[in-house]
Amino acid sequence: MRLKIALLLIFSFLAFGVRSQNANPEIDKKVAELLSKMSTEEKIGQMTQITVTSFEAKGKPGEFDMAKLNEAIQKYHIGSILNVPNPGAPTIKRWNEVITAISNEANKSRLKIPVLYGIDAIHGSSYTAGATLFPQQIGMAATFNTDLVKKGAEISAYETRASSIPWVFSPDLDLPRNPAWSRMWESFGEDVYLSSRMGEAMVKGFEGNNVGSKYSVASCMKHYIGYGSTTTGKDRTPSIIPERVLRQFDLTIYQAAIKAGAKSVMVSSGEINGTPVHASKYLITDVLKKELGFQGVVVTDWKDIIYLYTRHKVAENNREAVKLSVLAGIDMSMVPEDYTFYVDLLDLVNKGEVPMSRIDDAVTRILKMKFELNLFQTTVANLKDYPKFGSQEFIDAAYNTAAESITLLKNNNAVLPLNKNEKVLLTGPTANSMKYLNGGWSYNWQGENSDTYAADKMTILEALQNKIGKENVLYTPGADLANFDDAEIAKAVEMAKGVSKIILCLGEKNYTETPGDISNLYITASQSKLALALSKLNIPIVLVLNEGRPRLISDFEDSMSAVVQCYLPGNEGARALADILYGDVNPSGRLPYNYPRYPNSLEKYNRKYTESLGDEEQNNDAKYEKSYSPQFEFGTGLSYTTFAYSNLKIDKTEISNLDDLKVTVDVKNTGKVSGKVSVLLYLSDKVASITPEVKALKRFEKINLASGESKTVSFTLNQKDLQFVNNDLKWISEKGTFKIQIEGLTQEFVLR
Amino acid sequence: MRLKIALLLIFSFLAFGVRSQNANPEIDKKVAELLSKMSTEEKIGQMTQITVTSFEAKGKPGEFDMAKLNEAIQKYHIGSILNVPNPGAPTIKRWNEVITAISNEANKSRLKIPVLYGIDAIHGSSYTAGATLFPQQIGMAATFNTDLVKKGAEISAYETRASSIPWVFSPDLDLPRNPAWSRMWESFGEDVYLSSRMGEAMVKGFEGNNVGSKYSVASCMKHYIGYGSTTTGKDRTPSIIPERVLRQFDLTIYQAAIKAGAKSVMVSSGEINGTPVHASKYLITDVLKKELGFQGVVVTDWKDIIYLYTRHKVAENNREAVKLSVLAGIDMSMVPEDYTFYVDLLDLVNKGEVPMSRIDDAVTRILKMKFELNLFQTTVANLKDYPKFGSQEFIDAAYNTAAESITLLKNNNAVLPLNKNEKVLLTGPTANSMKYLNGGWSYNWQGENSDTYAADKMTILEALQNKIGKENVLYTPGADLANFDDAEIAKAVEMAKGVSKIILCLGEKNYTETPGDISNLYITASQSKLALALSKLNIPIVLVLNEGRPRLISDFEDSMSAVVQCYLPGNEGARALADILYGDVNPSGRLPYNYPRYPNSLEKYNRKYTESLGDEEQNNDAKYEKSYSPQFEFGTGLSYTTFAYSNLKIDKTEISNLDDLKVTVDVKNTGKVSGKVSVLLYLSDKVASITPEVKALKRFEKINLASGESKTVSFTLNQKDLQFVNNDLKWISEKGTFKIQIEGLTQEFVLR
Repeated sequence: MRLKIALLLIFSFLAFGVRSQNANPEIDKKVAELLSKMSTEEKIGQMTQITVTSFEAKGKPGEFDMAKLNEAIQKYHIGSILNVPNPGAPTIKRWNEVITAISNEANKSRLKIPVLYGIDAIHGSSYTAGATLFPQQIGMAATFNTDLVKKGAEISAYETRASSIPWVFSPDLDLPRNPAWSRMWESFGEDVYLSSRMGEAMVKGFEGNNVGSKYSVASCMKHYIGYGSTTTGKDRTPSIIPERVLRQFDLTIYQAAIKAGAKSVMVSSGEINGTPVHASKYLITDVLKKELGFQGVVVTDWKDIIYLYTRHKVAENNREAVKLSVLAGIDMSMVPEDYTFYVDLLDLVNKGEVPMSRIDDAVTRILKMKFELNLFQTTVANLKDYPKFGSQEFIDAAYNTAAESITLLKNNNAVLPLNKNEKVLLTGPTANSMKYLNGGWSYNWQGENSDTYAADKMTILEALQNKIGKENVLYTPGADLANFDDAEIAKAVEMAKGVSKIILCLGEKNYTETPGDISNLYITASQSKLALALSKLNIPIVLVLNEGRPRLISDFEDSMSAVVQCYLPGNEGARALADILYGDVNPSGRLPYNYPRYPNSLEKYNRKYTESLGDEEQNNDAKYEKSYSPQFEFGTGLSYTTFAYSNLKIDKTEISNLDDLKVTVDVKNTGKVSGKVSVLLYLSDKVASITPEVKALKRFEKINLASGESKTVSFTLNQKDLQFVNNDLKWISEKGTFKIQIEGLTQEFVLR
Repeated sequence: MRLKIALLLIFSFLAFGVRSQNANPEIDKKVAELLSKMSTEEKIGQMTQITVTSFEAKGKPGEFDMAKLNEAIQKYHIGSILNVPNPGAPTIKRWNEVITAISNEANKSRLKIPVLYGIDAIHGSSYTAGATLFPQQIGMAATFNTDLVKKGAEISAYETRASSIPWVFSPDLDLPRNPAWSRMWESFGEDVYLSSRMGEAMVKGFEGNNVGSKYSVASCMKHYIGYGSTTTGKDRTPSIIPERVLRQFDLTIYQAAIKAGAKSVMVSSGEINGTPVHASKYLITDVLKKELGFQGVVVTDWKDIIYLYTRHKVAENNREAVKLSVLAGIDMSMVPEDYTFYVDLLDLVNKGEVPMSRIDDAVTRILKMKFELNLFQTTVANLKDYPKFGSQEFIDAAYNTAAESITLLKNNNAVLPLNKNEKVLLTGPTANSMKYLNGGWSYNWQGENSDTYAADKMTILEALQNKIGKENVLYTPGADLANFDDAEIAKAVEMAKGVSKIILCLGEKNYTETPGDISNLYITASQSKLALALSKLNIPIVLVLNEGRPRLISDFEDSMSAVVQCYLPGNEGARALADILYGDVNPSGRLPYNYPRYPNSLEKYNRKYTESLGDEEQNNDAKYEKSYSPQFEFGTGLSYTTFAYSNLKIDKTEISNLDDLKVTVDVKNTGKVSGKVSVLLYLSDKVASITPEVKALKRFEKINLASGESKTVSFTLNQKDLQFVNNDLKWISEKGTFKIQIEGLTQEFVLR
């Protein structure tokens, strides 16, 4: 008995310790009071999320069938609605009407619990017409500028609340291990530290100081966990990630975002090591809720409880799938097209197969978020509160983010910046369309309507014409993204003969999720054929990449004079690109992943030493490709100026396991124009019981230097930076020598 | 106290239970006696393995410097020597001299302990001139005929003992997960069941009923464990394998080979999840030696203790690396070019950092193997005992194995078999060389000298000329494996105009290990260019693949009328191929891996359901490549006859967890010629708590049927076949429905 009491005390203490981070006793009290009044049916309804198109009137796209909405709220007591009414991307006025209708219906219910509306606001409030669209996350990461990313999330929150929506399914905290993955561009790239800092900034931007304010929204970390690491690179296929690796890398990003306050999390549609995450009590309840102390709402991804039996085959039927996932710790099911979840869960609770304590935990989390979001006071935006919606101030922020994301990967013979008086040929299938600049999650799921919704925004062609005059820009598409068109190639070649430079825009179509699956990482053959044809003309070619993932260009990269990576830069991207191409903006993006050279050589920058043996290890007689040679390495990013690094100093050469370490380095702009640069600090553990990475990013800071200007940049490393997860799943550091690396400079210190 | 005694009793019982499998009290006694007489230096010497070229006279390749040999044996007491004296592939007479010299030196030592000689006899006694060379392991697997594989190992044992060598570093039990791996062809392919049965057969063939007989050798399972599963596909790079997966797949193969009696094991040069296997006490001592009860010798791979500090960086220096690996459970170090292991281990033992008990365990295992191999009686072969060395009987066995391995993947319009009176063009870079037929580990490491050593064997060109007359075979290489040669392509195209069929031989150069690393799985561009040029002629093309791994052919496969996979069929391969092409042998090989279509779509046949969603799951608007569509699936293998399957029966439709299940099926040769066929039984677990595989091979049997003949094939499935490893690392089965599949037939049964 005494042991039990002691354990109870310890548990209470731990629970208190965790709760104190998010404590709001007033809200807790309101939640408990409300919960105590709720029937089982009302509770289970709260856990049910349905897509808005389910309430559409038959044959009348975009119009509610009020009987269906009434049934959902009064009969099934649903707690949440998601997604977009037809025909897609409503105005804020139309959103206002939609949410008002829902709100009115909720107000007729017994307890008047507001319905929580959630939306895929991915790069800005991307499902609202006229909203400000930023670069997609991969470009956000390339800025290496957390201030811009936070600012972008603030603007997205503002415009989403202006749309009367309080909850966004963002940020994406996936850590892609296969660059072929169709959602690579929705992530912050391949590095855990960069992703953590960016995720944190985005959560803070969305949620602000008070998530209940009319300018903040609840964020949703996704997709917990391991979703971005499928072995084959195909979306929603199995991941293989040992727990040690999961903890050292993937989980670290979530820890940072939870610490930043993230209110909700969406579960991965994938499986890890044979267990679908939606069925993993260990990952959802033991690790996320208990160990990390996550207090928010755990929502499924689209249809993922149903998929437990139809796709993953870990449940015999829907009822078993519901039981598995609710007992695993799911709080809300994105069902989202029927009431099977409600019906089966009610039966499970009534028969005692799912305990009421589990239901109460889920509903408590949901109600808490609704109170925190202030939905019991306000569910519908007052449009007068949002004068900045789509404003020039916001557009400028999106422009600045795009400008700092665009990454100059190669610039032979300083071909860039171009001369404004020179005639150029602009060609390539991505040169004149908004949908390739925005990618998926733009106005609708696959983003195919950007040219309609963003008709007032500039394509690359328009931005170049605007910059240097129509008379200086010859244009022809040159190629289709998929189909061969030799006549178009011939036309482009012919037109090129009258110009001194070619700007070749290649890339990918708009896509996300399974429709974006590919089996071949090479850029499409129709595009490489155009590149190869143009490369025979001996006219300098500036290759502009507009793509969500690094499509291989090694078949023709040698012939390109310059390579500019745009990623998916959003509505203001083409203007930013034009300013960079002509030197009005100095590029400062850095590549947030290794750009592979070959399809079967997908090593990460933070590889192990055994992955990058030198040539001396090869047998000359039989040598094939070199073992580690990405086309462009993580962190690559050129400028129109030059930066000199000197005086790399550390304040101690030996530290104990209590000490921090201060690192300083001087950076000078030694070129003729001002420029921004992200200073990257890498650490290497020279020997460790788990094979050490060749290097790992530990700090970065972006600074702006005028020509001739110098700054001293300071970083403080702490003990956590020296640690890794060992085979006992503990974070540990080991005595020995560590190496710090900033650009070409190194310093070593010893942990005693 | 009482608990301790009980545990001791349990432990003794377990130990006894395990030991009884290998018990030979007489040998145990001899080992203990000898060990008791040995000094620490003599013990550590036994654990030291040095390469024979270390004893070469300076400037005199192939000649011993007797002082060096004397120093090795008398001063360092070395227990083992490996590899090949210069200039490579000695005759059995030369081997006799080499081993005699070593043996004489050993006989001068205090305790006269024989030196154990080990060799990479990979596909036959491949380091002995004139030995019989079989298909490489991947072809052995393709036979789906364990009798042939066992017979091949018996012959290899015979010829290796004829070379006075008692220990072979074979079989390879790696389970390649990335088909780009340079040692794919050294494995039995991607399936755990096939690999287990083949590995077992090979161990039994090598070791016979009495491993001490003059016709048997000790086998060496390699490379324990996870070596074949590197993430990037590059040799000796990191593997990521969760323990659950490791146990269900990789470890299962070792369990089968240990049960078959394997006397030794070589450790993987790679790391799993950040731990180099050479440093893993868990994998070597806890799992292999204790849990699996392995009683044999654990030897490192080449230089792998040194690599723990120079490559893996888990040790500060050699001394620490030696300590780590010996404490992990290594019994013998393939040092192999210096005495650092000896010197450092002696110091570690003298200073008490490595306990004598660990040394005694290692030396006991080594001495036991030497006694079992009868080396205290005989170390040098009496050549008169080996009249069958290189005999026609052995050559016929190699021929039969090659003939059953060659796999017909495609045969449009029955273009095969060819007509002997028809003129053909034979072209392609692999058409006239023995080294591509044999691959690596043939006469030397990379196998580049096969054309010299096997000059009397037939290339594909010679075999075709022999078959249909020189006058009917036009030949030109057509292409180089690596370099473009448009003139050669033009020549081949020109020559083709006079023939009715083209036999196009494409493939890979000879290679193994790191020199075989590739970064692009596509077949080399110089070869696809030749294929595309020929395909424009509208002359039927028979594509003959001669390659160690599935190099992608999707750029031109559509234009090939027939595709024949030869793998690396060895010295008799071309004759077997010619007989198949002309119908004198009916092909019966089956593909032991999925042949991918695209470089970033490397799914295995036993994929999960989420990896092979149908088209209905795709978004039509945005569809890319289909998610699962290998060029040729695991098990593909056509015949010149047809087989009809009927009457698939099971003896129970419901079983308990004690029951076996008997499965029968009738197979009839419905064609006009006799043929062999491997009947494959697949099992699917319809629902399981770990996402089930779509299907998994559980049984196979190869039968021979005359035209019109029928046979009933019987299989018995047991409980183990229904099991998988769960997240607690236990083998379990779960109640529910299972599906059996043989060809197009299915039956379901329920486990209650």
